[in-house]
Amino acid sequence: MKRIGFVGLGAMGSRMALNLVKRGFEVVGYDLRPEAAAALAAAGGRAAATSAEAARDADALLLMVINAVQAEAALFDDGALDALPAEATVVLTATCPPGAVRAIAERVEATGRRFVDSPVSGGTAGAEAATLTIMAAAPKPVFEDVRPVLAALGDKIFHVGEAAGQGATVKTVNQLLCGVHIAVLAESFALAEKAGIDLDLLLEIMSGSSASSWMLKDRGPRMLQAQPEVSSAVDIFVKDLGLVLEAGADLKTALPLAAGARQMFLAASGSGHGLADDSQVIRSYRALNG
Amino acid sequence: MKRIGFVGLGAMGSRMALNLVKRGFEVVGYDLRPEAAAALAAAGGRAAATSAEAARDADALLLMVINAVQAEAALFDDGALDALPAEATVVLTATCPPGAVRAIAERVEATGRRFVDSPVSGGTAGAEAATLTIMAAAPKPVFEDVRPVLAALGDKIFHVGEAAGQGATVKTVNQLLCGVHIAVLAESFALAEKAGIDLDLLLEIMSGSSASSWMLKDRGPRMLQAQPEVSSAVDIFVKDLGLVLEAGADLKTALPLAAGARQMFLAASGSGHGLADDSQVIRSYRALNG
Repeated sequence: MKRIGFVGLGAMGSRMALNLVKRGFEVVGYDLRPEAAAALAAAGGRAAATSAEAARDADALLLMVINAVQAEAALFDDGALDALPAEATVVLTATCPPGAVRAIAERVEATGRRFVDSPVSGGTAGAEAATLTIMAAAPKPVFEDVRPVLAALGDKIFHVGEAAGQGATVKTVNQLLCGVHIAVLAESFALAEKAGIDLDLLLEIMSGSSASSWMLKDRGPRMLQAQPEVSSAVDIFVKDLGLVLEAGADLKTALPLAAGARQMFLAASGSGHGLADDSQVIRSYRALNG
Repeated sequence: MKRIGFVGLGAMGSRMALNLVKRGFEVVGYDLRPEAAAALAAAGGRAAATSAEAARDADALLLMVINAVQAEAALFDDGALDALPAEATVVLTATCPPGAVRAIAERVEATGRRFVDSPVSGGTAGAEAATLTIMAAAPKPVFEDVRPVLAALGDKIFHVGEAAGQGATVKTVNQLLCGVHIAVLAESFALAEKAGIDLDLLLEIMSGSSASSWMLKDRGPRMLQAQPEVSSAVDIFVKDLGLVLEAGADLKTALPLAAGARQMFLAASGSGHGLADDSQVIRSYRALNG
């Protein structure tokens, strides 16, 4: 694989496309904002005026768009799939619901083209440093063919399954734990503050105990601030835990803790805190408990 | 403080009493099993035949019994409190509900004696190595007076508040997070296995991601075994999350995630798995989702 079409040059995509350029791939990029494609061209790639133009003659078409609706629009409505060579591979790196990923994969594969369900995690820092975690699902030979492309983007490349939707599921499961870990930390602080416990001291104790989690260390300090800087908003977890529950419904799997946690993020959003830092889900507990 | 009465020489208490002996305290120990007190005597302490005998002439009386009922029995029914000098301090290191701790403290302090609510964490390994985390609540001067005793038992000594019950609350909050972290890990595995994800690979991915937790790394591997060795039983979390909800009720604090998690441990217990390793709460999810 040599030539890569890249659709979606936002905070994540622009950095990922640049890493492909640095590794010697020919990258043709498209974004709804023409200045994003121009920036890629200035950095050694090429700008396309449409998704279809990015796809033309590409060995692989990467999609780092906002959601499944944008991926479908690019592929099916804007003609990128038709423009793509018959032997090429579509690599969906955006975070989408597993069911939507399966549906997109079916439409792609019905044309004879190949599909890799390949969400990433690690944020813009990981995208910049090419240290993303990549959770790819595809038939093994298809995965091996795109591995050099993925290796330009991340350093933890996992083949999580053969079937489209499994990559999205792994990402979804990851978000399930993240969301519940944040909400339950808020729940524990709510109990402790009712008892008059010093929450800073509590956070220090629990950071070193069996109660610890990645989220406790990351979100805990911001949860104790009244107006913390926004790292990721409450509404993101309203959406992500929504995707979790959608995946559970598709697979007929009851997820009582994820469902409960989502209600707390929803309540925070409904109370006007949707754009606040997600640690502020603690406001739901304070509203609940007085 | 020089002379310590010690009631409850079980897996934790025997190791803690021994560490006091090693640090030069005169330790007089009592346990329901006379051989436990005899072992302490053989190691340089002294054996008492009753709780009251352990308390006589002591500067501090430590209670490392099973629960609040045993602590009350030793202090009030078996005469240890009456036997204790008027200036002495009762140090309750057992894990008890905050409300019960407050009630015990009131009865102790009504006699003019002092009280420290001081649960520990770190298990038998921490008890053996004198590396326990100690979460003590007492008026500051009382805490400072017993600090040398606590320092013989642990290396992370926290003064968490002035009021009896606050130490127990910190321990309770810790258990809230632990219990929910185990249950939500089971929930996430249940979703992933329905999607056909390789759970060993998923555990590897999430151990290094934002989804990670102390419990994920500790319980995750055992959760993927059909009959894992029992580190701590399902029924322990039925009890501990019960204490969490009792504390929430006392403080009028709704704890929806802890309540949900307890139902899953209860269901595992009700299905006959109460004595299985607590990671086997995943069996509840499998029963729920087929």
